[in-house]
Amino acid sequence: MGLIENINTPEDLRKLNINEKEELANSLRQELLDIVSKTGGHLASNLGVVELTIALHSLFDTPNDKIIWDVGHQTYIHKMLTGRKNKMNTLRKLNGLSGFPKMLESEYDCFETGHSSTSISAALGMARARDIKKKNYYVVAVIGDGALTGGMALEALNDAGCSKTNLIVILNDNEMSISKNVGGISTFLTRLRTRKGYKKSNEYIKKFVNKLPGNMGSSIINFVRKVKRGVKQLIIPNMLFEELGFCYLGPVDGHNIEKLEDILTKAKEQEGPVLIHVITKKGKGYIPAEVNPDNFHSTASFNVITGESIKPKEEDYSKIFGNTLVDLAKKNENIVAITAAMKDGTGLTKFAKEFPSRFFDVGIAEQHSLTMAAGMAKAGLKPVVSIYSSFYQRGYDQIIHDIAMQNLPVVLCIDRAGIVGNDGETHQGIFDMAFLNIVPNLIVAAPKDFEELKQMLEYAVNLNAPVAIRYPKGSQSKEVLFEKHDEIVTGKAEVLQEGEDITIVAIGKMVALAQKVANKLKQNGISSEVINARFLKPLDTSTIIKSVSKTGKVITIEDGIIEGGLGTVVLESLVKENLSKSFIKAYGYPDEFIKHGKIDEIEALYGLNEQTISGEILEKLQEELKI
Amino acid sequence: MGLIENINTPEDLRKLNINEKEELANSLRQELLDIVSKTGGHLASNLGVVELTIALHSLFDTPNDKIIWDVGHQTYIHKMLTGRKNKMNTLRKLNGLSGFPKMLESEYDCFETGHSSTSISAALGMARARDIKKKNYYVVAVIGDGALTGGMALEALNDAGCSKTNLIVILNDNEMSISKNVGGISTFLTRLRTRKGYKKSNEYIKKFVNKLPGNMGSSIINFVRKVKRGVKQLIIPNMLFEELGFCYLGPVDGHNIEKLEDILTKAKEQEGPVLIHVITKKGKGYIPAEVNPDNFHSTASFNVITGESIKPKEEDYSKIFGNTLVDLAKKNENIVAITAAMKDGTGLTKFAKEFPSRFFDVGIAEQHSLTMAAGMAKAGLKPVVSIYSSFYQRGYDQIIHDIAMQNLPVVLCIDRAGIVGNDGETHQGIFDMAFLNIVPNLIVAAPKDFEELKQMLEYAVNLNAPVAIRYPKGSQSKEVLFEKHDEIVTGKAEVLQEGEDITIVAIGKMVALAQKVANKLKQNGISSEVINARFLKPLDTSTIIKSVSKTGKVITIEDGIIEGGLGTVVLESLVKENLSKSFIKAYGYPDEFIKHGKIDEIEALYGLNEQTISGEILEKLQEELKI
Repeated sequence: MGLIENINTPEDLRKLNINEKEELANSLRQELLDIVSKTGGHLASNLGVVELTIALHSLFDTPNDKIIWDVGHQTYIHKMLTGRKNKMNTLRKLNGLSGFPKMLESEYDCFETGHSSTSISAALGMARARDIKKKNYYVVAVIGDGALTGGMALEALNDAGCSKTNLIVILNDNEMSISKNVGGISTFLTRLRTRKGYKKSNEYIKKFVNKLPGNMGSSIINFVRKVKRGVKQLIIPNMLFEELGFCYLGPVDGHNIEKLEDILTKAKEQEGPVLIHVITKKGKGYIPAEVNPDNFHSTASFNVITGESIKPKEEDYSKIFGNTLVDLAKKNENIVAITAAMKDGTGLTKFAKEFPSRFFDVGIAEQHSLTMAAGMAKAGLKPVVSIYSSFYQRGYDQIIHDIAMQNLPVVLCIDRAGIVGNDGETHQGIFDMAFLNIVPNLIVAAPKDFEELKQMLEYAVNLNAPVAIRYPKGSQSKEVLFEKHDEIVTGKAEVLQEGEDITIVAIGKMVALAQKVANKLKQNGISSEVINARFLKPLDTSTIIKSVSKTGKVITIEDGIIEGGLGTVVLESLVKENLSKSFIKAYGYPDEFIKHGKIDEIEALYGLNEQTISGEILEKLQEELKI
Repeated sequence: MGLIENINTPEDLRKLNINEKEELANSLRQELLDIVSKTGGHLASNLGVVELTIALHSLFDTPNDKIIWDVGHQTYIHKMLTGRKNKMNTLRKLNGLSGFPKMLESEYDCFETGHSSTSISAALGMARARDIKKKNYYVVAVIGDGALTGGMALEALNDAGCSKTNLIVILNDNEMSISKNVGGISTFLTRLRTRKGYKKSNEYIKKFVNKLPGNMGSSIINFVRKVKRGVKQLIIPNMLFEELGFCYLGPVDGHNIEKLEDILTKAKEQEGPVLIHVITKKGKGYIPAEVNPDNFHSTASFNVITGESIKPKEEDYSKIFGNTLVDLAKKNENIVAITAAMKDGTGLTKFAKEFPSRFFDVGIAEQHSLTMAAGMAKAGLKPVVSIYSSFYQRGYDQIIHDIAMQNLPVVLCIDRAGIVGNDGETHQGIFDMAFLNIVPNLIVAAPKDFEELKQMLEYAVNLNAPVAIRYPKGSQSKEVLFEKHDEIVTGKAEVLQEGEDITIVAIGKMVALAQKVANKLKQNGISSEVINARFLKPLDTSTIIKSVSKTGKVITIEDGIIEGGLGTVVLESLVKENLSKSFIKAYGYPDEFIKHGKIDEIEALYGLNEQTISGEILEKLQEELKI
């Protein structure tokens, strides 16, 4: 590891010769494996960009030149080369390094990314700013083939292509996005990738044909027309990018530093937008990840030798969702499942296997997935969409304009709702309740445990209205096991425990916390009424009002931002009944972005555990007794 | 107009011969002109699709076959041919026909559209549903070249291209979107359009080359390689669509019914996804609209002979915004303006002329526009984005994830905030306050009049933080002219009038209504304190609390949904101070989609005028006196 030790900034890297860089690549890969096997994180994609990262920091004058890493989880090697190698053991831990680029961590992180497909837009913005401010630096966007099919990346390509701005887009083509890549662009890239005999840049051809007369004789045109189709696989598949106005360079072997440096040198000399097609292998150099990159996309800590997880993966909400949907789909032929490049993550792998013709992974394309679901619902199917909470932000207009406005019976399953933990700010699913609560016609629900998720899913697929069901990352509570599971009725809450002194209204996974708080309070002689709200919208105000009228005190607990969420809607319903004085506190997240750390660490940090909440309640009650 | 009289359903249309259809086209065009010149509405795009609409309803068995019209405002002819011709004089009027497809109006309106770029997703959903349900009908999406560059349309093309599903996409290429089209795809379409000698379908070529050996000799490959660039304008520009997996047919003259019917017949025989490239002319047949289609994109009533508006266009918020930004940009070289195909509508035409290198119209690409702005802000510019309120729903994740999370100083100008009137449900800007209020780091403001918009814009471009400024369609109040214009300070409200009996808190254009209510109450001896909130976020709770502590009564007025908006945040701040009993009512819009009609009609419908509000207050006060 001697070579790594000597690299404190990219400046040090630039002094190395090619052999040393190759040696460095091996050491980095080893070190990365060592770290991520302990910390967990995104392994496969980072193993894939070791040489590319070295080449980029060698050829570009970072941080003066700007490199924007799409999706951001592919920046571990970048972090190791930019002064953070000694902190890598804190990766994704509370107060440690983020798993994504963060400006506060380093001046080498010039733009923060977490969600996919943003890099070309950001890079084009920077390039245009550079031109306007008459500065002189390179701007490079590094984007995967999966992220490229996201709508905003295509919008950006379209804009950049006609911009004449100097901008380098590196297409990191690893033959897959998070899971299997999808769509026409993917097929096109496969053809591009597999061509023989087209490894050289086509500069030469360009020079040649520029000299040709513009208006060619019809005989040659006719001839070429005829052979066109037969040869197009061989000569023109880069046309898609060239048609959009990019100079296309590549494809180049993304694990050959020398070739990468050559092509980057060439790209730096070009005027206007350039796209370099780099072929890499996800998981490169670590056989278990090469063979099974999906498993090592985002991994928990694992045994380096066997590649197996150290902790066996426990049953989680995603799996319960997926299995339940398979059962429901057996009974109801109209059920189809849709996701946007999150098949494994959302638990839909089994569904995809059992009902391949009723499963649709549209790739990184949340907007399209939702409006397509609307079309399906309109034509008589029962589409169930499963997407992570923070990615629904990408499909907000489609929920409002295409699903809710037409009142179409689409089931929106919101996975990774609430705090997701180690991924941090960009991925916390804390806004969904607030932004969905204001959508007319939409029903918004959240289950307290696995069993209730099953109930809600069955309820939702049988309802003729749009329903959102949100559930968290991970497992149900191990300490609180609910026996009660009332039938699901729209807008009806579930009273889990009757009590006299205080009402605790909670939703989703926080119902277990409410029960724990109630148990704790009981030890102090306080009797709590525990209400599982079930529906944020429509809220069961009558059950809540009845309870608060009795107890005279209420708190709410939710795993989302308080503003606009459960706390807000409960408070509003109390005000209408002149009961607002009973409102003690809304527990949830304040108006800020929530950093990374383990889920329970973050919850504790924001006072969302039974100690803090019961402590605060006791204090409050004692105060009142004094008065 | 005899021919029109006899067409009650497309069934009647199908009986006509080609000459009669051409005659019908002329009559429809005349009738359309007659109607829209009185009702106002989208003229140019509808004049452009007269023949296409006739051909579609002739060749397809609607409503069994499904036609999805992108953006939806191009459906006037469709409405006239599907049983609604006698109601066209009610177009866009309260309780009249909508300017967009509406399922409740007709079974021929199979999917509702208003925002752009949704049609291919919806059509693909329907086509897949048809296949799964083993039904047999055609699904057709009609999409303009402008809408095609929207990210979700590209996502859908990508998915559809590899789907093998029978689906027909009609690219209605009228050489422009709402204003000038932008980007690489546009350039590409121009090449496609202007080719000579490529009018025939390339079916023949396909058959020929399919017979060629797959592995051709290197000499011919080298030859073709060399001539490639020179001939590509002539032979291969349809590759973009073919690369994505579509069978490309066209281009075809969109004003020749016979040719349209031929190509549609051919398309119906194809297996898999087909794209038909139809060339139309916006405003076709009406010279003023042909010459100046921008002016007739969405028009008020006008004189058919001169093409001039009947009412002269008055000064509006958009114009004030645009002019102010020009003034500010003269002083600050870092200011750049960005819009997404709304240059004229947002008032940026003058800016674009004065600062062409600092103006960016990215086309219909809200997502990209916002993240590009983030990139620009990061690189030292002061980007001012101007987009209509309802289209910000398309860029929600970009606001959260790319702008607010990095706390980048982007100015988000929200035009058409509140009720927009005749465009109805899809375009009402009523959600923005609620969904922006929950975004951390973001400042949300709204001016009471033109002068305050100027102040706020100057404040925003000088602030090092993300700011959203929302303002309505149309002019400032003519009845209430404010003299007071305090300096803008973040989170500081403006007390416009001191009073003793009641506090009226309003925001944006509703401050004028608040003043009118106060004036009315004064006539009844009631003294109102009028507070211009200015900032929804951060809310000036101290000013509000101070006032309510004095008056003991408060109402709020906003032009957005109440839930999550001003009403909610004021109520929450009152609860904290134990003042919630003072809260009388939040005026604004309830939890539903708001239909079309004139702005003042809609406002009256929801009780948002001085008569209703002052009446309710008086009643409330009298009740209290009785008690």
